[in-house]
Amino acid sequence: MDIDNIKFSVIGGDERFAYLSDGLGQKGYEVSCFGFEELEFPLKYTVKCPSVADAKSGAGCLILPLPYTKDGVNINTPFTKRKICISEVFENIPADTVVFAGKCDEKLTSLSQNSKCRLVDYMDCEDIAILNTVPTAEGAIEIAMKETVFTLHGAEIAVCGFGRVGAILAYKLKSLGANVTVYARRDEVLCLARAYGYKAVKIQNIDREVFKFDIIFNTVPSMIFSHSLIDRMNKKTLIIDLASLPGGVDFPYAEAVGLKAISALSLPGKCAPKSAGEILMNGILGILRKGQI
Amino acid sequence: MDIDNIKFSVIGGDERFAYLSDGLGQKGYEVSCFGFEELEFPLKYTVKCPSVADAKSGAGCLILPLPYTKDGVNINTPFTKRKICISEVFENIPADTVVFAGKCDEKLTSLSQNSKCRLVDYMDCEDIAILNTVPTAEGAIEIAMKETVFTLHGAEIAVCGFGRVGAILAYKLKSLGANVTVYARRDEVLCLARAYGYKAVKIQNIDREVFKFDIIFNTVPSMIFSHSLIDRMNKKTLIIDLASLPGGVDFPYAEAVGLKAISALSLPGKCAPKSAGEILMNGILGILRKGQI
Amino acid sequence: MDIDNIKFSVIGGDERFAYLSDGLGQKGYEVSCFGFEELEFPLKYTVKCPSVADAKSGAGCLILPLPYTKDGVNINTPFTKRKICISEVFENIPADTVVFAGKCDEKLTSLSQNSKCRLVDYMDCEDIAILNTVPTAEGAIEIAMKETVFTLHGAEIAVCGFGRVGAILAYKLKSLGANVTVYARRDEVLCLARAYGYKAVKIQNIDREVFKFDIIFNTVPSMIFSHSLIDRMNKKTLIIDLASLPGGVDFPYAEAVGLKAISALSLPGKCAPKSAGEILMNGILGILRKGQI
Amino acid sequence: MDIDNIKFSVIGGDERFAYLSDGLGQKGYEVSCFGFEELEFPLKYTVKCPSVADAKSGAGCLILPLPYTKDGVNINTPFTKRKICISEVFENIPADTVVFAGKCDEKLTSLSQNSKCRLVDYMDCEDIAILNTVPTAEGAIEIAMKETVFTLHGAEIAVCGFGRVGAILAYKLKSLGANVTVYARRDEVLCLARAYGYKAVKIQNIDREVFKFDIIFNTVPSMIFSHSLIDRMNKKTLIIDLASLPGGVDFPYAEAVGLKAISALSLPGKCAPKSAGEILMNGILGILRKGQI
Repeated sequence: MDIDNIKFSVIGGDERFAYLSDGLGQKGYEVSCFGFEELEFPLKYTVKCPSVADAKSGAGCLILPLPYTKDGVNINTPFTKRKICISEVFENIPADTVVFAGKCDEKLTSLSQNSKCRLVDYMDCEDIAILNTVPTAEGAIEIAMKETVFTLHGAEIAVCGFGRVGAILAYKLKSLGANVTVYARRDEVLCLARAYGYKAVKIQNIDREVFKFDIIFNTVPSMIFSHSLIDRMNKKTLIIDLASLPGGVDFPYAEAVGLKAISALSLPGKCAPKSAGEILMNGILGILRKGQI
Repeated sequence: MDIDNIKFSVIGGDERFAYLSDGLGQKGYEVSCFGFEELEFPLKYTVKCPSVADAKSGAGCLILPLPYTKDGVNINTPFTKRKICISEVFENIPADTVVFAGKCDEKLTSLSQNSKCRLVDYMDCEDIAILNTVPTAEGAIEIAMKETVFTLHGAEIAVCGFGRVGAILAYKLKSLGANVTVYARRDEVLCLARAYGYKAVKIQNIDREVFKFDIIFNTVPSMIFSHSLIDRMNKKTLIIDLASLPGGVDFPYAEAVGLKAISALSLPGKCAPKSAGEILMNGILGILRKGQI
Repeated sequence: MDIDNIKFSVIGGDERFAYLSDGLGQKGYEVSCFGFEELEFPLKYTVKCPSVADAKSGAGCLILPLPYTKDGVNINTPFTKRKICISEVFENIPADTVVFAGKCDEKLTSLSQNSKCRLVDYMDCEDIAILNTVPTAEGAIEIAMKETVFTLHGAEIAVCGFGRVGAILAYKLKSLGANVTVYARRDEVLCLARAYGYKAVKIQNIDREVFKFDIIFNTVPSMIFSHSLIDRMNKKTLIIDLASLPGGVDFPYAEAVGLKAISALSLPGKCAPKSAGEILMNGILGILRKGQI
Repeated sequence: MDIDNIKFSVIGGDERFAYLSDGLGQKGYEVSCFGFEELEFPLKYTVKCPSVADAKSGAGCLILPLPYTKDGVNINTPFTKRKICISEVFENIPADTVVFAGKCDEKLTSLSQNSKCRLVDYMDCEDIAILNTVPTAEGAIEIAMKETVFTLHGAEIAVCGFGRVGAILAYKLKSLGANVTVYARRDEVLCLARAYGYKAVKIQNIDREVFKFDIIFNTVPSMIFSHSLIDRMNKKTLIIDLASLPGGVDFPYAEAVGLKAISALSLPGKCAPKSAGEILMNGILGILRKGQI
């Protein structure tokens, strides 16, 4: 594929896709889009089209939202009232068109195959996942700052899970002066956390000191903050759950006992859509350049 | 003074004074208060009184808000609709009562002298001023996170002034991965900034690269961001002005040209009232213990 | 195994094994040792024995050095002039004795099997490997400080490889104010390095800016600093090679052209034997407790 | 003075003055020197002269060592066996020659006045003093790493005094993972240390926990570590005293009881002479440019 002369078409998505679109345009690519009629800020480097068909015309690469659909029928288009049926995107699409989408499912795979398109789920791209940890961690910190009446400096904070997001979140919290305790399951992960200077405790033993925390960030995608653990907690503690749904907190029980628990998802797109758009753009360009499609 | 057995009376103020009040109570002091009828959260360790006179009764130490008045007539009481006349506070007050207040003026000094009270402006307390830099810096970062569509990580950020607030703000921003440039006037201050690893430039030369910043924090209490400097700026830059009024930004001109400039004052009380209340409490207790009154 | 009542026997090794031995003693274990006659500091909680046989007597767990032998014939005993033949260790040893050793080979495996011992190579223990990155990184920094005439603050430093050691080394160097560039091969590793705020460049392109560095730390165990790369370097640059032998530097050529290149191996034992002994001790106790043998 | 065309003459001094000399040469200044016959590395941008008279010839600015003399008679010249009498420097020197020297005394002042020279003590320059804190702190850390058998990571470390050197040293130690306690006298300084995240304790109470430290850095120029305080200390603690002579430690008593105490002075020149030379060079050029002479 001649990547330098490819035309992009961005169909729908949140603000991050608007930034992605304009970012591609600013790099000199031809970009057309559809689905941003109600966006508050102007697009400078992108041609806004009156229809999906116009936006797709001549495009060698289509970029669909994250997730590409919310209802299984239409494309996820928060910035337009017009509905775009998923199948509409694939109508009259040339063979070999590259289609990028987030959280691809069987329906999209099937549509792509029928149209002889090359479908890529950008959420499978390691580069994007790794770089997204930064806006995720910042977004989590922004929420913590907004929701508390005390400073992070000097606060007792637990970070559950020490994967990519947990590690960078712990790093930023410690930098801001918080007393960070990392909870994880595996011994070697606890050792790694200790090597970076955190107090590290087996997550199996979280009940022992759980009452002492001002804020708990959870990144573990399983039910950690169950009924029985919540019973041992100080009701002033704030839980911010970053784990994918259904998350790691018994939210109904937390609410019932007056413990504030926030499910904080899709933070890059919400808290830093411009940065998130750039990460997506660089990831997509990287995939195209490497010809991994 | 027998500090261990002193009774405190907190008259008015914002949330931070509610936390200050309850903090004293939690430490075992007898505390009564007036002026928090509309506070959302309950006071657990403080006796809410039906009148100023009741609250003052038996108190050896009165604590007034910051600033103690906003209109020069009444005590600053955002959490009650009832008006408390400044002079009312001093009616029938025993001689030698210690009165703490923020931003004391001639009127308060004169009233104290007439009542033979000992007036202390807690804003003159170095400990409080220094510790308040932490919630100030966190509050400024919270605003920056909220108002921007990009991450602080990787952002180009200027900090104008490298006094207490500037220094701790630069430290936290750098910890979060921002590219920080410190602007200051004096050579030795620039050297200090460099010793801590910041790029440091004479503030006289700020016009040269001012267009490159994503965010500019100002802590210098003089007109830095004038008409002519704003003309050289990128209109997407966000200015957060932490300097006391009138501040360091030509706000009307900034607004006229579409540059977002936020005057961010009293951040400790707004962003972290609990921490700010503790800082005030510890400062006040420190002053009493040292007998510096 | 009744771990609380196990008797340990430490046979040979460098200073770190002396600290390991005394650390076990201080925890209340019975410990005997052989092979530390010439150690400068006294052992307080360890019984020094006159022979290997005495030291082994009654021991349920033997601890051999790292590496357990240097010549393939005798145990590695830098602190005694007496030779301990490897086979001597296994003479009359009870079945089921646990034998810990570093860099086990076929010979040791065979001897263990013949004696029906349970052989464990503690270098296979993830916990130990991870925690050893800390003294390794500090040791590397100590060497850099000693060998240079400039401060790390403000120095241009490259870290080649961003595995465990590379990551923690980069973190410490950046904390000390160095300008750190990370070189790595894989895109996702470069993204990770960027997420932590480092400049990150593909190692394939290291020739482009290699001349600019004051210090280069290599952790990649393959020939990076070859004849042709060295030709492009500033001869004042210091290379510190942390990769296992044969390392990543053409040392003879570096010397020939006057470029200082240091092979820095076994840093934990050399630079922080006490910490290294504790890491080893905790790793060994962890293995015993988990019954992973 | 026409600073761009000034000729410098460097007379004596340690390695740092060799780097200073060559640094000036590299910037395009004409530089001659005397007193570096035994220096191990070559000077590339400096003319080595056979006599003081030759070196001084045509120079508008003389640079003398730090301290300029050690015996009160001769210039401090560690890199030559030849003696340079102080008065020799001023023989036939043109009026208005600028003479920079370190630790000027009455003798030098008097000689300068007689020769109508303009004498400047570069140690009075704030910029130099501030920037020297960096090599001082790094040098102190290098000593600590060399002298201990444990890692700084996880070590209990006290920093006595929180002036310029104490502050930057505490910052670097904390960055390396040490548990830092700051001791200082004044409350507001303790608050400042707390705002930066250190544990901070009044130095009057240092006896309470002094036994717990692995390393103590002293920057306070008065007798803190007296007979009675040493009696309360763990004899394995290492003291590194950065305070000017006579320092803050009863060294004879420390030695008598087996406590290791190191007086670490002039660290910039010893540990990072190139950086120290640059700091001096920039300081001197700054003074000349500002015409502060």
